[in-house]
Amino acid sequence: MITETNQACDLVIFGTKGDLARRKLLPALYKLEKSQKIHPDTRIIGAGRADWNTEDYINVVKKAIKKFLNEKFDENIWKKLSSRLNFFNIDVSKDIYFLELKKILHEKKNIIIYYCAVPPNTFNAIFSGLGKVNLNYFPSRIIIEKPLGISLETSKKINNQISKYFLESQIFRIDHYLGKESILNLLALRFSNSFFFHSWNNKIIDHIQITVSEEVGIENRWNYFDQMGQTRDMIQNHLLQILTIVSMDQPKNITPEGIRDEKLKILRSLKKIHLNEINIKTARGQYASGVINGRKVPSYVEENGANKNSKTETFVSIKVDIDNHRWCGVPFYLRTGKRLAYKYSEIVVVFKKMSNNLFQEFNKNLPPNKLIIRLEPNESIKIEFLKKVPGLSKEYKLINDRMECNYFNINNTKNFVDAYERLLFESMRGIQSLFVCRDEVEEAWKWIDPIINSWKKTNTLQLYKSGTWGPKNSDEIIMRDGRFWETFN
Amino acid sequence: MITETNQACDLVIFGTKGDLARRKLLPALYKLEKSQKIHPDTRIIGAGRADWNTEDYINVVKKAIKKFLNEKFDENIWKKLSSRLNFFNIDVSKDIYFLELKKILHEKKNIIIYYCAVPPNTFNAIFSGLGKVNLNYFPSRIIIEKPLGISLETSKKINNQISKYFLESQIFRIDHYLGKESILNLLALRFSNSFFFHSWNNKIIDHIQITVSEEVGIENRWNYFDQMGQTRDMIQNHLLQILTIVSMDQPKNITPEGIRDEKLKILRSLKKIHLNEINIKTARGQYASGVINGRKVPSYVEENGANKNSKTETFVSIKVDIDNHRWCGVPFYLRTGKRLAYKYSEIVVVFKKMSNNLFQEFNKNLPPNKLIIRLEPNESIKIEFLKKVPGLSKEYKLINDRMECNYFNINNTKNFVDAYERLLFESMRGIQSLFVCRDEVEEAWKWIDPIINSWKKTNTLQLYKSGTWGPKNSDEIIMRDGRFWETFN
Repeated sequence: MITETNQACDLVIFGTKGDLARRKLLPALYKLEKSQKIHPDTRIIGAGRADWNTEDYINVVKKAIKKFLNEKFDENIWKKLSSRLNFFNIDVSKDIYFLELKKILHEKKNIIIYYCAVPPNTFNAIFSGLGKVNLNYFPSRIIIEKPLGISLETSKKINNQISKYFLESQIFRIDHYLGKESILNLLALRFSNSFFFHSWNNKIIDHIQITVSEEVGIENRWNYFDQMGQTRDMIQNHLLQILTIVSMDQPKNITPEGIRDEKLKILRSLKKIHLNEINIKTARGQYASGVINGRKVPSYVEENGANKNSKTETFVSIKVDIDNHRWCGVPFYLRTGKRLAYKYSEIVVVFKKMSNNLFQEFNKNLPPNKLIIRLEPNESIKIEFLKKVPGLSKEYKLINDRMECNYFNINNTKNFVDAYERLLFESMRGIQSLFVCRDEVEEAWKWIDPIINSWKKTNTLQLYKSGTWGPKNSDEIIMRDGRFWETFN
Repeated sequence: MITETNQACDLVIFGTKGDLARRKLLPALYKLEKSQKIHPDTRIIGAGRADWNTEDYINVVKKAIKKFLNEKFDENIWKKLSSRLNFFNIDVSKDIYFLELKKILHEKKNIIIYYCAVPPNTFNAIFSGLGKVNLNYFPSRIIIEKPLGISLETSKKINNQISKYFLESQIFRIDHYLGKESILNLLALRFSNSFFFHSWNNKIIDHIQITVSEEVGIENRWNYFDQMGQTRDMIQNHLLQILTIVSMDQPKNITPEGIRDEKLKILRSLKKIHLNEINIKTARGQYASGVINGRKVPSYVEENGANKNSKTETFVSIKVDIDNHRWCGVPFYLRTGKRLAYKYSEIVVVFKKMSNNLFQEFNKNLPPNKLIIRLEPNESIKIEFLKKVPGLSKEYKLINDRMECNYFNINNTKNFVDAYERLLFESMRGIQSLFVCRDEVEEAWKWIDPIINSWKKTNTLQLYKSGTWGPKNSDEIIMRDGRFWETFN
C-alpha cells in the first residue's frame, strides 16, 4: 500500500559540504520546497566536519543552490527552506557526537532520514555511530548511493555492515536513473498500453539497445574512477537497472515488493558470460585524445594525476542474454562510455523485420520498426516505421518516418523533475519502489564479477579517439550478429 | 508483374462537358502534365454533343482548369497540355459517329482509353457503339464510375452490358477512395511494419471505426440522390472498399490479382444482416434543418425540387461483422452522412483494453490505445496511448497522449496527389490494382441489398439536426456494445 501521508522528517545530510550535496541534494531540496512537497515541520540538518554555526551553514547552502540551481533563485522560497536548516559539526569516528546529534533529533518526533553523501569508506562509521546510540530505530531511514562495493564480496561487506544496524525496509539505495521521469514512464508505457504490452516479447522484438553516453572524461576524480572503470561505475547499476525495467514481467502490483520481485527475476536470469565468449560478448575501450565540441581533449592516461599504464576501461559494451521464456533469442546490447561524440541516454527496441517482403519489387530491404525511448536529453518516445513515399510514381517505394511524442509536450517543462528531487521526495514518503534492494545489488555483482575477472585474463582493451562512439570492437559485437548500433539523431 | 512502360495513349473522355470532367479529370490531367507523367505522344480527345471545333474545346478546358485547379495556373504547362487536346462531336446513339472516331484513333497506334464520364443510362450506348465498330479490341481500356447499379440486379445488368464488348482486364472501375494516398499507404502500414502487422487481429484489436462525414447536403442533384440514398451512394462502394483494405489478409503479392483476391475474401465474409437485427446493427437518418459553419441550412425535404415525403436516408451507420478467423469478435462500425458537423474521413483502430489494471489505485479506467488514420483532411497517422503524468506526485496518474505523423511531413505538400490524378495515371499504365473488379461490386451489392430490403419493412428513419453527428440511433448502435464513436479532433 502506498502511503498518502506526507510526513514530517529530520533529514540529516552527512557530507553536506561535499559535491553530491552541493550539486544535487541542496538544489533538489530547494525545488521540493518550491513545489510545496516538504512537510512544514521537516528540518534539514547538515552534518559535517566544520566549525560552522547554523548561520555559516545557511550561507554555504545559499551559495551552492545559487550556483547549481538551473532556474531563477527566489528569495521567498529560500526563506522557507533556510528556516529549516541546521548545522551539526560531527566527527563520525567519535560516539559523543552521535549522542549530541541524538539530543537534537529528539527535540522533535520527526521521522529521521540519514543521507550518507560521503565516500563509502565513511559509511560504516556512520552506521555504527548511529547504531551505538540507538538512532537506528525503525522507522528511521538511511540513504546510501554508489559505489556500493567494487565486487560481490565488497558489496556484501557494505550490506552486512548496514544490515547490522538497519532493517532492509529502512535502507534506501539510490540509483538516480530510477528517479528519471522517462524510466518511471516505462512502467506506464509497458503495462497500461495493450498496444505495447502485446508487442513486448521475442516473437515481435528482434533486440534491444541501451546506450548511456557521456561527453565528459575523468577530470578531478581519476584515482577514484581508475579503480572502478566504466563497467562497475555504470553497467553494474544504471544500465542493469534500466535493463530490468525494460525487460521485467508485469509485476503483481506496483508496490516496492511487486516491482523488486520482477526486477530480481531478471537479474537472476542474466546469462553468465564465460571466459571463452568474453571477446565476442564484450568490448572494452579507453579514450585516446581527440576533439569534442571543437575542443581538444587529452587521453585518459594524460589526465591530471593519471597512471600512464592504466588498463581501466572508460567504455564498455556488452551483449546480454536473458535466460527466460519472454526474451529467449532477443539480445540486449548495452554500451556506455566517456568522451563520446554526444551525451545522451536512450533505449531502442528494434522489432523483427517482416518475414516476407511484399514490396520487394521496389524495396530490397524493409528496415525494422523501432521504438526509441530517449531518457535524456529531451525525453521523448518515437516510433520509427515505414510508409509509402507520398506522391505519384510507378514504383511503390517505402520510406522510414517517425511518430514522436515529446514526453513533456502536454504539461511542458514546468513539470520536469530532477531525479534527486523525486528520490528525496520518495524517501520522505518512505516508499522504496524507486530504490534498489540488497538482492538486486548482489545479483548484479554476481553477473559482473566474472566479466571483470575474464578481462584480467585477456587483454582486450582498445583505444578509441575521444569524440567518437567507442572502439572498433564495440561495433563488431553487434555487427557480428548482423545488427548495428542505432545512430544518434 | 507491374509494367514499367509509360505508354502513349489516346484518352477519349465521353461527357467532357460534364461536371466530373470539368471538376476532376481535366485539372488532374493538367497536374499529370505538370509532373511529366503523360507520354509525349498521348492525345486527349474530348467527346460530347456540341458544335465545337478543337479551338472552342481548348477554351472550354482552359476555363474549367483555371476554375477548379487548386494551384497557380502555368501557361507553359497549359501549352503542352492544350496541344494534346482534340474535340469530337458525338451522338452516342449513332454508329456513324463511332466510325468517325475510329478514323481519328487509327491515325496513331496509341493505346485507347475510354473514360465514361457520363450518367450510367448512357453507358450501354457507348459500350455497344464502340463494340459495333470494333473499337473495343484489347488492349484498349474503358473506365466507368459509380453508380454502378442500385442493386445486385441492376449492377449485374451494367456488368453484363460492358462484358459483352470488353474483357474484365480492360475494365477500370473507379472508386476514387482507392486513389487516395492514405488508403494506398495502408498497404505499407499494414504489410511492411511488423509492429502493426502483428497487432492486426482480434487478440489485440477491440473494434474498428470508419467514418466518412460530409458537410454538404443535396443541392442540385436531389432527384438523383433520392433514388440512391447514402447507403448505395457511399457504403456500397467507398466505405466497403476502405473496410476491405483495412481488414484483408496479406495478399500473396501486390499485383491486381493478389489484392483483389484478398478484398473479395473479405466481401464474401461479411456477415449478412438479418431482418430481426436490422435495428440493432443499422441506423438510418435524414437531415433536418440546422446550422453548419454559422450558416442556416434547410432540411433534406426542403431542398430544391424535393419530395416532401421522401424516406431516403442521408445518413447511415452499420455494425459490420466479418466472419473469419482474424476478425471474429471485432466489429467494424461504419458511418457516413451528409450535413454533419465537420467534413472528414477517418479510420480508428481501437485496441483492447488492458485485461488487468496495474495502476488501479490512482486510475480507475485505462482507456484503450488507438491508431487513428486520417484520410482527409490533413492525412495523418496517430497513436493514442497512455503515459505517466509528468511531474512529482504521490499519485501515479496516467494521461492520454498522441504520437503523430503527418503523412506529408517529409516531402511536404508538393507531393500531394489527387485521387483522380493517380487513377488516370494508373489507367494509362494499365495497372488495375486500384480499380474495383466485377466480383467486388457484385459481392458488395449482395450484402447491401438485404439491408435495404429490410429497411423497407421497418420504419427506422430518424431525423437529425444538420450540423450534428447524425441521429440518436447511430449512437445507440455502438453504445449498446459499451463503445463510443470516436469524436473528431
